[in-house]
Amino acid sequence: MPRDPIVSACVLIIGNEILSGRTQDVNLAHIATELNEHGIQVREARIIPDVETEIVAAVNECRAKFDYVFTTGGIGPTHDDITAECVAKAFGVPLYIHPEIEALLRQREAPPEVMASRMRMAHVPEGAELIRNPLGPPGFKVDNVYVMAGIPRVMQQMLDATLPELKGAAPVRSRTVTAYVAESQVAKPLGDLQARYASVDLGSYPFSREGRYGTSLVVRGTDEAELDTLTTELRTLITAAGGELVD
Amino acid sequence: MPRDPIVSACVLIIGNEILSGRTQDVNLAHIATELNEHGIQVREARIIPDVETEIVAAVNECRAKFDYVFTTGGIGPTHDDITAECVAKAFGVPLYIHPEIEALLRQREAPPEVMASRMRMAHVPEGAELIRNPLGPPGFKVDNVYVMAGIPRVMQQMLDATLPELKGAAPVRSRTVTAYVAESQVAKPLGDLQARYASVDLGSYPFSREGRYGTSLVVRGTDEAELDTLTTELRTLITAAGGELVD
Repeated sequence: MPRDPIVSACVLIIGNEILSGRTQDVNLAHIATELNEHGIQVREARIIPDVETEIVAAVNECRAKFDYVFTTGGIGPTHDDITAECVAKAFGVPLYIHPEIEALLRQREAPPEVMASRMRMAHVPEGAELIRNPLGPPGFKVDNVYVMAGIPRVMQQMLDATLPELKGAAPVRSRTVTAYVAESQVAKPLGDLQARYASVDLGSYPFSREGRYGTSLVVRGTDEAELDTLTTELRTLITAAGGELVD
Repeated sequence: MPRDPIVSACVLIIGNEILSGRTQDVNLAHIATELNEHGIQVREARIIPDVETEIVAAVNECRAKFDYVFTTGGIGPTHDDITAECVAKAFGVPLYIHPEIEALLRQREAPPEVMASRMRMAHVPEGAELIRNPLGPPGFKVDNVYVMAGIPRVMQQMLDATLPELKGAAPVRSRTVTAYVAESQVAKPLGDLQARYASVDLGSYPFSREGRYGTSLVVRGTDEAELDTLTTELRTLITAAGGELVD
């Protein structure tokens, strides 16, 4: 359907621990919500393993396809932290030791072997700009690829640091109308409504609550007045279908 | 690194509500855990919008790349439920009304318009096999692509129904050793250990708890005896690095 031009983003979640089911990702929902407030829509997310060929391929595919790419994970000091070298390979540039990060990491003393491991975090691709944050070593960006930590509170600080420089369009707003009504009862009028309003997204999400089946109808778009109109139409449509609105 | 042959899977999570940050996905962790018990490793997951070209492209790319593909979402009765038609397009086959699903859906009476919408759920690609479940209309499989509902408890029933027919290898088991130790303190010996044991995955996950920083070291592999050996090595390594083991 025709849409206003959007600014798009892809999130690459890097890490075996998410894929294995051991750890529940919580970064995507945060990134999607924050980016949307800045007028950037997350249009895809991928969860990929700590494997060089996979990371390089995903970075290259997604940076060509989306306006922005945000990665999380794999920038610590251990052998399985390979995101920086993969991003460097994706861009065909070498890694180098960034003097500012090196100075930061050398502030705390450590035995040579420990310092050498810590220094892995000072390596960034040539041409990268740092994503500074108060909690520790920075992330970095290369072109439209933003490389962030996997630990949620560190990632959130890094994201906050990048937001002011991102160029977005209008944020997507949503309204939700919830009712005890089966999806199939409202499917036809809902589809007709979607056909009349091509610039909004109408979504339908069934639920069951206290043994009763219901549906949340969500309308998303950038025009608040239009969303209000649609909300009224949705309420009318539900009532006409014999549904019971839930406040 | 060299590995035993694995049986791989990709999970395609279809739905604008996950991408927008409105809904937190919980299906991936469940699918990954269950499949692993059957010797199938989830090697990638993608969260994609309710957009035909995106779904068709992802299905075709992933069914060629992985042994199994599992999709969640988009098989209800409303206009935004387009997974079945997208999977049919991906395979270049038509949709048809499956008589068994039609009979199921016609069991409950409904006005013609409502029944017509409900009948969207009876459409499956030609050649599909049904994934029956006690909660409602079935999902289906075509070749190595398993199409499941997005609602977690329905998806779980469908997954349970597919598991007996899947051909897996050995399940990946894991051991976790947790310690108050900085990642950089153990990074060098951990990397050395990984180099010596190419058939296991050694992961390192930092955390902070009650103001103290620590690391969980996770070893994953299919050989339980090897995992036990590695666990002992990890505990020794942490103590040698000056870390404090947490039981």
